[in-house]
Amino acid sequence: MQPLDNLDTPCLVLDRGRVAVNAARLRDHLAGLGVPLRLHVKTAKCAEVAALVLQGEKAPITVSTLKEAEQFFDAGYRDILYAVGFERHKLARAQALARRGAKLTLLVDSVEGAKGITGFPVLIEIDTDGHRAGVKPDDTARLAAIARALEASGCSAAGVLTHAGGSYHSANVAEIAAIAGQERDGAVMAAAALRRTGFAAPVVSIGSTPTATFASGMEGVTEVRAGVFVFFDLVMAGIEVCRQEDIAVSVLATVIGRRADKGWILVDAGWMALSRDRGTARQRVDQGYGVVCDLDGVPIADLIVTEANQEHGIVARRDGGAPPELAFGTRLRILPNHACATAAQHERYHVVDGGREVAAVWQRFGGW
Amino acid sequence: MQPLDNLDTPCLVLDRGRVAVNAARLRDHLAGLGVPLRLHVKTAKCAEVAALVLQGEKAPITVSTLKEAEQFFDAGYRDILYAVGFERHKLARAQALARRGAKLTLLVDSVEGAKGITGFPVLIEIDTDGHRAGVKPDDTARLAAIARALEASGCSAAGVLTHAGGSYHSANVAEIAAIAGQERDGAVMAAAALRRTGFAAPVVSIGSTPTATFASGMEGVTEVRAGVFVFFDLVMAGIEVCRQEDIAVSVLATVIGRRADKGWILVDAGWMALSRDRGTARQRVDQGYGVVCDLDGVPIADLIVTEANQEHGIVARRDGGAPPELAFGTRLRILPNHACATAAQHERYHVVDGGREVAAVWQRFGGW
Repeated sequence: MQPLDNLDTPCLVLDRGRVAVNAARLRDHLAGLGVPLRLHVKTAKCAEVAALVLQGEKAPITVSTLKEAEQFFDAGYRDILYAVGFERHKLARAQALARRGAKLTLLVDSVEGAKGITGFPVLIEIDTDGHRAGVKPDDTARLAAIARALEASGCSAAGVLTHAGGSYHSANVAEIAAIAGQERDGAVMAAAALRRTGFAAPVVSIGSTPTATFASGMEGVTEVRAGVFVFFDLVMAGIEVCRQEDIAVSVLATVIGRRADKGWILVDAGWMALSRDRGTARQRVDQGYGVVCDLDGVPIADLIVTEANQEHGIVARRDGGAPPELAFGTRLRILPNHACATAAQHERYHVVDGGREVAAVWQRFGGW
Repeated sequence: MQPLDNLDTPCLVLDRGRVAVNAARLRDHLAGLGVPLRLHVKTAKCAEVAALVLQGEKAPITVSTLKEAEQFFDAGYRDILYAVGFERHKLARAQALARRGAKLTLLVDSVEGAKGITGFPVLIEIDTDGHRAGVKPDDTARLAAIARALEASGCSAAGVLTHAGGSYHSANVAEIAAIAGQERDGAVMAAAALRRTGFAAPVVSIGSTPTATFASGMEGVTEVRAGVFVFFDLVMAGIEVCRQEDIAVSVLATVIGRRADKGWILVDAGWMALSRDRGTARQRVDQGYGVVCDLDGVPIADLIVTEANQEHGIVARRDGGAPPELAFGTRLRILPNHACATAAQHERYHVVDGGREVAAVWQRFGGW
């Protein structure tokens, strides 16, 4: 295979050693808490990454689209949770996948939603932090009404699901741990309410990368969902869920110009390659469109991508000082704010083992 | 073909009647000024859209990647300007395209850049508004040095190019018209300087959708580049380059939930479908992640997408009031902040003729 120096830029580089370490760390943590991982595949959308994280096991997975469900079913996965509120126009496609042998679990948070489905195990979405969809954990009447509607439609009320997405905006680890407790308690409370009302509700599914990482107890929880931990990113580093050195994915770019008068270096990675995600803008340290590293992945002199056009990135020092003299044609690697968003801009991963040699090329898919 | 009601959501809808009107408007304006359009194909990345805009003529085009150059060459286009600063690692690929018969023009803004190229017509990038790359129009010494380096490398110093990207941040039409004058004057001045130094520099290429739309004179200019006008978007509407009714592209989404306590409607279009572009955030009216319309494309009750997760959009009223009662399963169309960014999240356009019937499906491509 070829060295990173020879690749057309921009392109995506994936350090698979870092993925393996990130995966082992969360796996060990969850094993210590006695709860299994249900990997979210929406970050990587790549069978090889899932196989690496799951050590080849066709373990239960989480998806955010039916296309992910179909693609991962084709890759051998059978136990698939579609963790976005289901709407009946997607039913025929879900049924086709079930007929092929998928154990597909769906999600609703309303009686209306429940009425549209038939013949699936379905979880009820619980809202423990007010950031998105879901039933309040103590709204027993609504929980029971949804469960009854599900069973009336020929579905099984299989349990509850919550996602503490609010944890992405935490200020520190203590805050994440508190949100993790709230996530677990809310989900367990809602499941208990369903059981008191006469539903088996065996599944209690919780998770987000921050709360999975800092949860200290999982009593009553049957599975933990997490996705971005496989790659990590600057948003996760900003809330101390990982270190910058753990980030496994970066955008390879080339220096295509210099504006000495402005203190700018121009690179051929703009928002098309980096995404428009500015997730660190509301963190303590705003990383612009990404942290600029050398070809070995080591950050350079406080350089970030301060502005992005479609195919141009403007690189400058955070403090506005003169950037280092990087020769025309120099290769750089840019760490992303948000791994899910940046990876989604690319069709493949150029896989390295810590060094500069591309050991493999792994395809990813997009779309719905 | 099928009605929009039957499509899997999220997906991209394109009103080709609006594209035709947008194209005719700019074409007529430029014809009145006596200058030809060199369409930028980076917005649509779709041969059918280019054919519609150019009325089937294989006219000169502008590209932002070599992949666009290759794809449009395969679609029959020959005169292709690659309008991003060129770096020599891309030379073999550019040469391969030239050998197949493309008249490929490249771009540089430094002596270093010029030294890396051989055998192409090359434009020198001029900076008229300080927003990105380029040589200052009055830096005659540097202009001449680059032109000499080009000719020493076996290239022709074919002229100058500028892009008044600063116009996207204008406050009003008068400001755009002023920037358009500055764009033209700077490019013409730089070309004159090159000619005084002994270079033919026949090409004076300028453009951006705002400046192309409001330029009042084109003396000395040989071509105008513009791209986003084919679709338009909320950023362009926000600076009065178009009306919201001119926006030709929208994301079709489905209502998947409701949070009466928060005043939210949940839809199945998140940032994966809409992009993370928040270009209206710095305009007078912040449109969130997009303006929410009914299935006919008519905006609803001041609704915008206020927050986006990967596959969830949160819809709310701008004023925080209670949103209308939209039934579970209701289809909506969301106008994008930035057409280039939103379209890039999709693999195809579902083409309508003003109504709700999908008359065609047009593929687009991504990558580099």
